[in-house]
Amino acid sequence: MSVTQPRGFTAAGVESGLKASGGRDIAFVVNTGPSQAAAAVFTSNRAKANPVIWSQQAIADGILRAVVLNSGGANCYTGSRGFQVTHATAELAASLLGASASDILICSTGLIGDQLDFDKVSAGLTAAHGSLSDDGGLDAALAIMTTDTHPKQSVVSRDGWSIGGMAKGAGMLAPGLATMLVVITTDADLPSAVLDATLREATRVTFDRLDSDGCMSTNDTVALLASAASGISPAADDFGAALTELCADLAAQLQQDAEGAAHDITIEVVSAASEDDAVEVGRAVARNNLFKAAVFGNDPNWGRVLAAVGTTAAAFDPYDIDVTINGIRVAHAGEPDQSRELVDLTGRAVHLVIDLNAGESTATIRTNDLTHDYVHENSAYSS
Amino acid sequence: MSVTQPRGFTAAGVESGLKASGGRDIAFVVNTGPSQAAAAVFTSNRAKANPVIWSQQAIADGILRAVVLNSGGANCYTGSRGFQVTHATAELAASLLGASASDILICSTGLIGDQLDFDKVSAGLTAAHGSLSDDGGLDAALAIMTTDTHPKQSVVSRDGWSIGGMAKGAGMLAPGLATMLVVITTDADLPSAVLDATLREATRVTFDRLDSDGCMSTNDTVALLASAASGISPAADDFGAALTELCADLAAQLQQDAEGAAHDITIEVVSAASEDDAVEVGRAVARNNLFKAAVFGNDPNWGRVLAAVGTTAAAFDPYDIDVTINGIRVAHAGEPDQSRELVDLTGRAVHLVIDLNAGESTATIRTNDLTHDYVHENSAYSS
Repeated sequence: MSVTQPRGFTAAGVESGLKASGGRDIAFVVNTGPSQAAAAVFTSNRAKANPVIWSQQAIADGILRAVVLNSGGANCYTGSRGFQVTHATAELAASLLGASASDILICSTGLIGDQLDFDKVSAGLTAAHGSLSDDGGLDAALAIMTTDTHPKQSVVSRDGWSIGGMAKGAGMLAPGLATMLVVITTDADLPSAVLDATLREATRVTFDRLDSDGCMSTNDTVALLASAASGISPAADDFGAALTELCADLAAQLQQDAEGAAHDITIEVVSAASEDDAVEVGRAVARNNLFKAAVFGNDPNWGRVLAAVGTTAAAFDPYDIDVTINGIRVAHAGEPDQSRELVDLTGRAVHLVIDLNAGESTATIRTNDLTHDYVHENSAYSS
Repeated sequence: MSVTQPRGFTAAGVESGLKASGGRDIAFVVNTGPSQAAAAVFTSNRAKANPVIWSQQAIADGILRAVVLNSGGANCYTGSRGFQVTHATAELAASLLGASASDILICSTGLIGDQLDFDKVSAGLTAAHGSLSDDGGLDAALAIMTTDTHPKQSVVSRDGWSIGGMAKGAGMLAPGLATMLVVITTDADLPSAVLDATLREATRVTFDRLDSDGCMSTNDTVALLASAASGISPAADDFGAALTELCADLAAQLQQDAEGAAHDITIEVVSAASEDDAVEVGRAVARNNLFKAAVFGNDPNWGRVLAAVGTTAAAFDPYDIDVTINGIRVAHAGEPDQSRELVDLTGRAVHLVIDLNAGESTATIRTNDLTHDYVHENSAYSS
């Protein structure tokens, strides 16, 4: 159970033949109301796929009836013909539901530059509509997988209302979202303005701080749909906290399933002069291939950490930074501190703390190591 | 022959025991005059090694008598004790030459955070002084190698004067220079102001546009020493053109020997609104791990190129960019163009042209693919 855990939602996931590897590839998530308030955030990449161009218009009025998602093709750089496929998909979904096409969000994932076969999409969506059910969440989560090794679902329950979510994404995980499609549902009764504000804040500190490989996708979408079926209107702060908890859980699942990764690296930047500084420093380290390759080799190479930190414009004295790896402070005041031999990197979890000694702010960026399997998956698999 | 090709220079390279793998590890390049005009540029990383901190002061007056270089240790994040080693090395070189310590440039390369053994440096430098000769260029070039598979040398000769250079660097090649030490000599008679201006312009369009893995080093140094031994003062433009030719050749040698690389990728950005835009776009693509892994797999994945271009702030219409790979235009006007099947990536050289259709400016960035060997060398080798 995920998107169908909250009341007021049905879902389905079917096989339409879009995905060369076979398996479910069309997901349909429908809000049965009574409310259809919604919010969504998208990739900040200027190279946007056709479904993103469509969906940014569809969400403008804060109302969504349903989301249609497909794997097996990103429908990006497919020109006006590709846009017509997105549009026709929304029209078909609207007609099946007796809704307006402008209330249908479309998400796609897969190879850039290939046309989607609308005949397959059409047949798949019609079949998905026929199999919509209030326990279809898992099927929908399965249908959006690409190189994911398992479906990602999460539920956060509160007194009388809940939030459910599903996510896909295993590579191209980067700031401003990842090749990541996320649909979140709730039966809380909240207006779209509150959904929008809480979704932006939750993604800012979760998905936006997951930076697996520094590569930003053309298709990233996180949608939040609220049915109001619980009849409960939680305080915005309470809802926001629950939403952030759910997004953090889905982001952790994405990190743990990142393509080819052998380590999950948590980079905690502390005592920064500002949160922006902390994020900038964390991201610079998260994108440093030499550091990431060292972690793969279980090498606590703190010199590569400081070399990456030194490329940023954040406020700090480069010779007064502490670096601690899995509890061992290996660099202090511009010199080696405890022996790197004491650092144990054999486990999957790596906790790097960078103390800038420059202020009171903090931020945590999550990334992965750079491995042979990453290179293999991304050189052998055209995506 | 390299740094000893121009008249007025002697050099040596000896083994002092600094480098765990054995082999020559101390290089000494001496300008015997009559002039000692010089210029140097350094890493823009705020995390600077002790030799860089020293050398930035040494070059301030535009005069250099000699350069001492060592492999086997970066002398970075080694605190005041490490700085004392750099200082003592300069004092020893000065005393051997009857010069001032402030006219000695020091360069180091190797692991960050390890103290250099001054006893070894001292013995090595004394031995190097004893073996200085006017055909010692190759020995010096050998002594600065780390993971380089071969020494890098270059000579450009003009009518009556010449320029010689040696370089090391095989990983951490990135903007604002690479873990790259370069010593360039000339027997032209030019003042330090001209040397400085021509060196900055030459590095700007050569070494600064080599971005093998996006990682910036703490030790990068490019030094230019002029002996005036030819008695000829070429026009600054003529000297600058010859210097740029030499730097381009050394940069190409660095690219071709980049750690683990299987392809040398030339990214030519054309029709940009400004040169800065062209550089930003080229660099974004050069740092995109997904694109680099695709090239390793001989996959002309132009979608990853456009996704990387879309992350920049350069002026362009994202749906009016042409992408050409090894002569095949695979994307045009926001859609697929010629079939990607036509692109042959089996050779080592890859030529990517990105036409932004936004202006008249152009820039070329050189990078490498992301390979299993890159991951292996940088996870198994602590550097």
